[in-house]
Amino acid sequence: MTKINRRRLFGLGAAGVAAVGTGAYATHALLEGPPPAAAASTSDPVPFYGEHQAGIVTPAQDRLHFVSFDVTTKKRAELVDMLQEWTVAAARMTQGKDAGTFGAVGGAIEAPPDDTGEALGLPPSGLTITIGFGPSLFDGRFGLGAKRPAALADLPKFPAEDLLADISGGDICVQACAHDPQIAVHAIRNLARIGFGKVSVRWSQLGFGRTSSTSRAQSTARNLMGFKDGTNNLKLEDAALLRQQLWAAPGDGPAWMDGGSYMVTRKIRMNIETWDRTSLSEQQQIFGRDKGEGAPLGGKHEFDEPDFAAKGADGTPTIAVDAHVRLAHPSSHGGARLLRRGYNYVDGSDGLGRLDAGLFFIAYQRDPRKQFVPIQMELGRTDSLNEYIKHVSSGLFACPPGLRDAGDYWGRTLFA
Amino acid sequence: MTKINRRRLFGLGAAGVAAVGTGAYATHALLEGPPPAAAASTSDPVPFYGEHQAGIVTPAQDRLHFVSFDVTTKKRAELVDMLQEWTVAAARMTQGKDAGTFGAVGGAIEAPPDDTGEALGLPPSGLTITIGFGPSLFDGRFGLGAKRPAALADLPKFPAEDLLADISGGDICVQACAHDPQIAVHAIRNLARIGFGKVSVRWSQLGFGRTSSTSRAQSTARNLMGFKDGTNNLKLEDAALLRQQLWAAPGDGPAWMDGGSYMVTRKIRMNIETWDRTSLSEQQQIFGRDKGEGAPLGGKHEFDEPDFAAKGADGTPTIAVDAHVRLAHPSSHGGARLLRRGYNYVDGSDGLGRLDAGLFFIAYQRDPRKQFVPIQMELGRTDSLNEYIKHVSSGLFACPPGLRDAGDYWGRTLFA
Repeated sequence: MTKINRRRLFGLGAAGVAAVGTGAYATHALLEGPPPAAAASTSDPVPFYGEHQAGIVTPAQDRLHFVSFDVTTKKRAELVDMLQEWTVAAARMTQGKDAGTFGAVGGAIEAPPDDTGEALGLPPSGLTITIGFGPSLFDGRFGLGAKRPAALADLPKFPAEDLLADISGGDICVQACAHDPQIAVHAIRNLARIGFGKVSVRWSQLGFGRTSSTSRAQSTARNLMGFKDGTNNLKLEDAALLRQQLWAAPGDGPAWMDGGSYMVTRKIRMNIETWDRTSLSEQQQIFGRDKGEGAPLGGKHEFDEPDFAAKGADGTPTIAVDAHVRLAHPSSHGGARLLRRGYNYVDGSDGLGRLDAGLFFIAYQRDPRKQFVPIQMELGRTDSLNEYIKHVSSGLFACPPGLRDAGDYWGRTLFA
Repeated sequence: MTKINRRRLFGLGAAGVAAVGTGAYATHALLEGPPPAAAASTSDPVPFYGEHQAGIVTPAQDRLHFVSFDVTTKKRAELVDMLQEWTVAAARMTQGKDAGTFGAVGGAIEAPPDDTGEALGLPPSGLTITIGFGPSLFDGRFGLGAKRPAALADLPKFPAEDLLADISGGDICVQACAHDPQIAVHAIRNLARIGFGKVSVRWSQLGFGRTSSTSRAQSTARNLMGFKDGTNNLKLEDAALLRQQLWAAPGDGPAWMDGGSYMVTRKIRMNIETWDRTSLSEQQQIFGRDKGEGAPLGGKHEFDEPDFAAKGADGTPTIAVDAHVRLAHPSSHGGARLLRRGYNYVDGSDGLGRLDAGLFFIAYQRDPRKQFVPIQMELGRTDSLNEYIKHVSSGLFACPPGLRDAGDYWGRTLFA
């Protein structure tokens, strides 16, 4: 069997590689130098190593492929081996390389390639790959029971949810975000390939059109209801707030999560046909925002502070008591905030003549018991938006801290 | 009720509009001037009017939202009215404007907006919207029976297909292609909104990563098997071949289709987990191509003509007798070609631990009876790729000619 490295793929010698590699558009399998400190364009790589995992405060890329796996092996050592293999592959793929080094190039190689090939010739596209461990991983199978963080408490039953078990939960999740969906899909698909026989895909979700900005350099995007939402999202520039509300800190719980964060996912189906037949004024009352500009009602600009005390000439509140912006606002929850990273989705049609579409909500936080849970409990009870949405899936995952270097692996702090 | 036009949306007067409109990045609702002759960047608009519908030879955009509708109204006049409304909305949306002019802006408007809003502020992104009429539209309901083209004959049953009726067929299809999925989704969603009560979504498909190039200026992209395929696709530069094999011509059938084309869709599920465990040499034998470069086996470059007569030292054909490139090649079908415009898809997981992924195949042609049908009959019988794929949905549509001007509408040649 011949080992051929990917440089030979396009028939390039070292000189050719150097010439291509110095361009802004370094292609898959051609990038060998260290990545720049941050992605400068939507083609560039995002660093994989760091104090925290990439893909959390990283400025939200435009596309998502999310997957939740069930672990099928019973052997702890096999699981750890797979996590190590995954880490190596993820480090490579985020830097625009193939998932593995073996057999991906032309030649008579009598083994399956180490990479599936559909990203050949494409740039890194800002790919981040972020892992999380679900509550079910801490059952008896792998001896992890004592390491389950209290903050990873099962979510309570919320009002007005209608969850489908087969697209909820899971032992391990992986969030792949990139500016090119082919790159995000390629990443998840190769991890699934490597995990064959040890994990099985429980559910998976594609998303497009980020609905949250995680940096002040990004504009607020629109959800499929046509509104800007999440204007008050935690952003990477908010250093003090991130320490206070995003990252698990020493003393919070088991040390293996120090520097990590807790992820909640909710697939929120929208009844868009009903919404589309609702008057503009009612839509705006429900969100508590102007649709065009995104300003809170009574305000002029998107980032104006909502005035929840303001009343109209008839004495009714300018922003309704059950408006989304009021109920979700930090001031309604003792200052609690989330780092949201959601995406729009359309999953074809529902067999009843309607598009199956909505929001795949992802939120990171230091402790869901103090953040997502009380916020969603209030929204589920009172939000006038509930008439137009339904939560159909739910996930909760503990995302460990970042990887130090090439000797580190996903789960080291938990398993070692 | 107040009518407010979208120019006021961002608080811009005429001067502001002019300033923004002259930039390369003309945003939705701000573009008022005529479009350029062809899309110069992935943000720009593609002309809507012309001899043929846009979205066929238009250089394939990167994203797809495809929908098939059942017509639910029994009234021909209502259907024609809706097609006229659709045409107006499509002409606007492809040029970066809202679907309609009414009520989409802030203010106390007590009616649903004429546009759903999620594309506000986004550029046209090369959007094309292409319509087709399915065989079932020509049943007794609308008096169209005598106008059904012979070329729109129901497709035969093919070997090795396993079609699901609820994601096959349909009375009317709309193909929206764009460089931004939010733009493609917005287009289909607004047509569905306008069609409420007259049509119902039968099925819908999102796609990413075009798998075919329709212009010599585009590189051949890769399918989810990691291979370049469709290298010999019809391309917009092939004027003589397009006349011969793509466009319906006078005398072919009913005059209403002159300048139109016939579209076949096939959703082809890939068993990617099995494929990913197949050796590279077998993968290459099955396609008859080298995976890295895309060259036909025995050749060096992607566009080398395959040498189907070549044999190895042991006397076996270099390109196997059941290789995909051989069976699909025009030389195996009296020169018959297709204009392919397919996309990769991932629809989550299949509940059996696997990704639900594959190719949404779209092909245009002058007469499916002479092109898609014999080619697929041969592939279905013999192609060694069949072990790894399954056709799960099928569609056939007659796409009428292009629209002359703002007084024209989709279906005029059929209904008028």
